[in-house]
Amino acid sequence: MKPVLELTHPTHDHSYRVVYADTDAGGVVYYGRYMRLFEIGRAEYMRNVLKIAYSSLEKQGIIMPVVEMYCRYKSPAHYDDLLTISTSIYDYTKISVRFHYEIKLSQTNKTLMKGYTVHAAVDRNGKLLALPDNLKEAMSFVKTGQT
Amino acid sequence: MKPVLELTHPTHDHSYRVVYADTDAGGVVYYGRYMRLFEIGRAEYMRNVLKIAYSSLEKQGIIMPVVEMYCRYKSPAHYDDLLTISTSIYDYTKISVRFHYEIKLSQTNKTLMKGYTVHAAVDRNGKLLALPDNLKEAMSFVKTGQT
Amino acid sequence: MKPVLELTHPTHDHSYRVVYADTDAGGVVYYGRYMRLFEIGRAEYMRNVLKIAYSSLEKQGIIMPVVEMYCRYKSPAHYDDLLTISTSIYDYTKISVRFHYEIKLSQTNKTLMKGYTVHAAVDRNGKLLALPDNLKEAMSFVKTGQT
Amino acid sequence: MKPVLELTHPTHDHSYRVVYADTDAGGVVYYGRYMRLFEIGRAEYMRNVLKIAYSSLEKQGIIMPVVEMYCRYKSPAHYDDLLTISTSIYDYTKISVRFHYEIKLSQTNKTLMKGYTVHAAVDRNGKLLALPDNLKEAMSFVKTGQT
Repeated sequence: MKPVLELTHPTHDHSYRVVYADTDAGGVVYYGRYMRLFEIGRAEYMRNVLKIAYSSLEKQGIIMPVVEMYCRYKSPAHYDDLLTISTSIYDYTKISVRFHYEIKLSQTNKTLMKGYTVHAAVDRNGKLLALPDNLKEAMSFVKTGQT
Repeated sequence: MKPVLELTHPTHDHSYRVVYADTDAGGVVYYGRYMRLFEIGRAEYMRNVLKIAYSSLEKQGIIMPVVEMYCRYKSPAHYDDLLTISTSIYDYTKISVRFHYEIKLSQTNKTLMKGYTVHAAVDRNGKLLALPDNLKEAMSFVKTGQT
Repeated sequence: MKPVLELTHPTHDHSYRVVYADTDAGGVVYYGRYMRLFEIGRAEYMRNVLKIAYSSLEKQGIIMPVVEMYCRYKSPAHYDDLLTISTSIYDYTKISVRFHYEIKLSQTNKTLMKGYTVHAAVDRNGKLLALPDNLKEAMSFVKTGQT
Repeated sequence: MKPVLELTHPTHDHSYRVVYADTDAGGVVYYGRYMRLFEIGRAEYMRNVLKIAYSSLEKQGIIMPVVEMYCRYKSPAHYDDLLTISTSIYDYTKISVRFHYEIKLSQTNKTLMKGYTVHAAVDRNGKLLALPDNLKEAMSFVKTGQT
């Protein structure tokens, strides 16, 4: 059974240029380097769509670690490729948020890989928290109960 | 539905010491840094259990990129922690291999995270290949059809 | 004796947003993560000032590995900081190019760190080459003999 | 003028296996990935020669950020190479320590690169501190005044 990886409305797009630091001796972007791209997509989605910078949650004493991640790699990215990181929120509960990502080659719009991450909210000591109200409010346009 | 993440026999264990380079400003190992640990576990499993170094496949002109990955993060790892990377092969087909991983705190044997990766075999131009015979032979102890 | 680290005219500026992946458990950008920023600065300098993409040199069969690097770290960068990567070419010879870098906090223009890298030209087998003519021509505005 | 990069007695050796995550599309270890190796060398030197784990300094509230770094790259490292990281303390003052590193190919003992890092001691707020007494005592075998 394949996990759902679709993007939902609204989606935020962010450009990313592949550097040597992202690639490996196979000549392509290393599979473990896409997590940085997911992070960029997520942070820019929060800043631009939710209007809540992740750093402002941090200042409230809230961290949102990844508790689950899935990736499907379809086609490799290469040095100097210009990529589009598309990000959306698929669903959220009282204690977690699920982001979906799609990495495309900007020039052709070809999908290179897709994935999702699920995040919990914890305090600085790792204690589980309910999602903060300002975050839930900002996400209220998301139709919950999709997962 | 939760994906199967169990280790199967034989399992290979490898020690890993967390360095600052692995951690992030949250004080814990960054979620995207575990892919390096998976890679180490996989390479040492191949070298020590299958007796086929991944580098020897490369010399045959075969690369085995990740086509799918899943991770569940249960508890964070911290700077200077000594970790155990446990790796096994869960299943394989004519064209793919699935590795399972478990990262534990060595001192207490507490599980910090689990995951799997699925690998295809391709040539230097990215063309899909059947798994090479020497690899299939080396994996013949694995009971297939588990997935 | 302190190495020369000044920027010279022309300088290219590029914006960079710090992500969690750049930071470490000390709460600041890891000292080894600035090499990615140097690479970005260098690549964008080449693309925008020299009008030669590094990827086009690669297609000519030329790689320009770092043979020497120096960094002075003055003040730390933090998560979500917007940085300016300033890059210039300080000098070049028949076989090497020296880039200077300065990383500043964009908001205040405060210098966080400075450094230089020296690059040789080699072919795919690592054999030393003279710098290609198109690169030397593009750099002809640089007053050589500074080092 | 070439900086001094010699190792001094005692030197600590640590083995390191190159993984794909260390390499780049040039087929060799990325120049910015050696900082992780320096960190490993430094941490193991402190643990094994000085008998002071860096993590124990952290628990005293002391961090030792890099304030200066120099690297000379002579020859590339490749995937699956077994490397030896050799580390020594070259010198120290009341407020700083200078580590020297040499990365060698274990099989042939060929030197691939050399470098040094200079570290200051700061508290959690970045305030400069004198080196802690237990660290100075542990380093008392080093002949100071070399730099």
